[in-house]
Amino acid sequence: MDAAKTPQALKINELRERYRSGETTPAEVVGEIILRAKQDQEMNIWITPPEWSRIEPFLLRLNGIDPAQAPLWGIPFAIKDNIDWSGAPTTAGCPAYAYQPSEDAAVVARLIEAGAIPLGKTNLDQFATGLVGTRSPYGETHNALRPELISGGSSSGSAVAVARGHAAFSLGTDTAGSGRVPAHLNRLVGYKPSLGAWPVRGVVPACESLDCVTVFAWDAADAFEVDRVVRGPHESDPWSRPLPSPTAALPSRICVPTAGTLGFYGPYAAEYEQAWQAAVATLRTLDIPVEEVDVAMYGEAASVLYEGPWVAERWAGLGAFVEANPGASLPVTERILRTGADPKHSAASLFQAMHKLQAYKLEARMRLKDAVLVMPTAGGTWTREQVRQDPIATNRDMGRYTNHCNLLDLCAIAIPAGDAAAELPFGITLFATAEREDLIRGCAQAVAQTQARIANPLSPIRQ
Amino acid sequence: MDAAKTPQALKINELRERYRSGETTPAEVVGEIILRAKQDQEMNIWITPPEWSRIEPFLLRLNGIDPAQAPLWGIPFAIKDNIDWSGAPTTAGCPAYAYQPSEDAAVVARLIEAGAIPLGKTNLDQFATGLVGTRSPYGETHNALRPELISGGSSSGSAVAVARGHAAFSLGTDTAGSGRVPAHLNRLVGYKPSLGAWPVRGVVPACESLDCVTVFAWDAADAFEVDRVVRGPHESDPWSRPLPSPTAALPSRICVPTAGTLGFYGPYAAEYEQAWQAAVATLRTLDIPVEEVDVAMYGEAASVLYEGPWVAERWAGLGAFVEANPGASLPVTERILRTGADPKHSAASLFQAMHKLQAYKLEARMRLKDAVLVMPTAGGTWTREQVRQDPIATNRDMGRYTNHCNLLDLCAIAIPAGDAAAELPFGITLFATAEREDLIRGCAQAVAQTQARIANPLSPIRQ
Repeated sequence: MDAAKTPQALKINELRERYRSGETTPAEVVGEIILRAKQDQEMNIWITPPEWSRIEPFLLRLNGIDPAQAPLWGIPFAIKDNIDWSGAPTTAGCPAYAYQPSEDAAVVARLIEAGAIPLGKTNLDQFATGLVGTRSPYGETHNALRPELISGGSSSGSAVAVARGHAAFSLGTDTAGSGRVPAHLNRLVGYKPSLGAWPVRGVVPACESLDCVTVFAWDAADAFEVDRVVRGPHESDPWSRPLPSPTAALPSRICVPTAGTLGFYGPYAAEYEQAWQAAVATLRTLDIPVEEVDVAMYGEAASVLYEGPWVAERWAGLGAFVEANPGASLPVTERILRTGADPKHSAASLFQAMHKLQAYKLEARMRLKDAVLVMPTAGGTWTREQVRQDPIATNRDMGRYTNHCNLLDLCAIAIPAGDAAAELPFGITLFATAEREDLIRGCAQAVAQTQARIANPLSPIRQ
Repeated sequence: MDAAKTPQALKINELRERYRSGETTPAEVVGEIILRAKQDQEMNIWITPPEWSRIEPFLLRLNGIDPAQAPLWGIPFAIKDNIDWSGAPTTAGCPAYAYQPSEDAAVVARLIEAGAIPLGKTNLDQFATGLVGTRSPYGETHNALRPELISGGSSSGSAVAVARGHAAFSLGTDTAGSGRVPAHLNRLVGYKPSLGAWPVRGVVPACESLDCVTVFAWDAADAFEVDRVVRGPHESDPWSRPLPSPTAALPSRICVPTAGTLGFYGPYAAEYEQAWQAAVATLRTLDIPVEEVDVAMYGEAASVLYEGPWVAERWAGLGAFVEANPGASLPVTERILRTGADPKHSAASLFQAMHKLQAYKLEARMRLKDAVLVMPTAGGTWTREQVRQDPIATNRDMGRYTNHCNLLDLCAIAIPAGDAAAELPFGITLFATAEREDLIRGCAQAVAQTQARIANPLSPIRQ
């Protein structure tokens, strides 16, 4: 095996081409991945790392499958450890919670059916509660680029696995930003489909009514290759629903927050602010009108609801486990979960909040008619040490521009948007209403083309 | 004015034809209606009865409207008094709650725009909380046929107004059966569209997430004439959603409860049971397979959820008023509302209930794929005296076959199905999933044709 043969960025199309030409094989790529995972062991990326014995059956199985009939033939992927894969236990980041699933989650089953190769289970903020990537008894996941910084969470291991070349793509989950923040901090694309577009059957619930499965990939094209395979209602998933398959379309408007109204934070606040301004400047070079809008409503919806009564939904799912297993969860996680049991969160107050949410959803639907909203994916980052010092406030900041999304029934794609400083990626997120995933796809494509043109005016662009 | 000119059953198509031929005018019909309402005063049908001064402007306005452009030109309708009409106060059946709306509810505005004539506001079970029609400080609404029996509720006045010839159709609301039970008890059609199909903007909320506006009419054809005018999303209604306009289609199966598994109650339990068996026999004469199914799930969903944490949704809407106005609501109503404030209904328990509901909805969607479910609209009735003796239990019985409907996101149409005894109408309800209103329309049509053929083998049928 020759490391030069397998680049760090395992892009789906490139792998596919190299398989076709005979330049490499899935087995060779998996071999290299196992080695890389070993070498990066201290980064705490995996809970069940890639091991030959677990993966071999899936490689052998490829012999019986025509690559032309299996869109992800031989493409290796990582699975966040709150998503069931019958090949390994599901821990949700909590050893006492671990169980051996008898079935694959619906998304995993669809990927395997399409020829993709499951590698192992990745580290996460325990019970997918967190946006930092440090809340795990399996160790703090390191950032792929700068070890002193957070990786982002909760899908920390899934993002870093792709960024470090341990997988071509990975599955995450996203309730309040867990599939977008780590993409941003590790210079990846993080696609969060609309609620119900991909089945959540076989996923450990965080907030059951808001949970999505997501994908991390090197570019939007790869993310939508995965989408094509896993999308669609599942007969035993009560949350799944039929939504149009997103072909790319351009929005009639791009909405950005009114200049000067965003808050940036952390040790690189100034660099982030500059990077955001540069990103808006790039958006203005697209052939789509850019409109400055008041985005206070989005933050308001998130803080009133998500930081309010919605925490009771986490308690609804996990309260019984936490009560029955004292000391089994991390202190910071238990502290957050227990706020969901606060008697101030009555059923009547939750109904009132839900009625308010319904009005917010309508408002978002009106505002985003045929439009895409663009925000920074995060307004800053932190060192892992800073998060240790103040685990709640630093975490809350990371969700400032992500928390509203699932509540308001929006889809989102986090995409890289240049670097804020050396090895300090910056990223933006494109949002649209649930039925208009085509708009974020088309817009992400347009942005990527412009970025590539700026980086190299003569390079050919992959659509 | 000549009473013989204006029949008791004010059917839309017949009125339209009589206007067209010059046989009568909207003003003549309204005059007759005002008289009838006076004559029936002791039946407690109206809260704001039809008065010439309120109605005249709408009659005058007709002169400027081309009947060919206004599908409900000159058709008089009644409005349940929890639906705003700027022509009269909205009381919701509680004088202390009354307010003068500055705008018409969205459905009322659409009807007036289509040429329909608003008449007045009808009596109801206070805050639309009840299925009996006796819970009103404006008096117990009498049954249209037998004064000792209940009218059904909560849309009691709206149903009896149509049945007594005070209106061609009427608006009701329906959260748990309020638009179906009174249709049944007064030998009418009660159509409850899918959640969100008609806007609820300008309606006093009962359980905001489950409330529907409904219509009472003499036949399904009239109900769907109204549907055509009022259907469709409204830009300031967060609950409204686009749903297909129901053209009639036949289901591939009719599901009925397994023989012997239904419970009948009240002084006419035996007659009801026989009437139900006769109705099933009629269904079996249609050219559609009839399948006996276990319906326990529907009742279970209703009792676990609707009689459980969902009462907190009523408290969410009305708790502040009840607390601020001691003694303003009826004791029985306040007693029910207050159960919604029980601390056992925590936000976490409500989330658990909502997750359970999501699974029930999936189950219903699977079971009713391309099918219509048929149940008796009610399993019996009561005398007004019996309800006075035991207001809670008698009321609960009336919802046995209606409570599950909105929770499970079903549409429904209650239709007459013969009489259980002299002047004791029996009725059945057809249910389908929210997107398949076409199936209950088609099936109601087929049943009506068969009923007419049985009654008079040579009569022509209106489709």
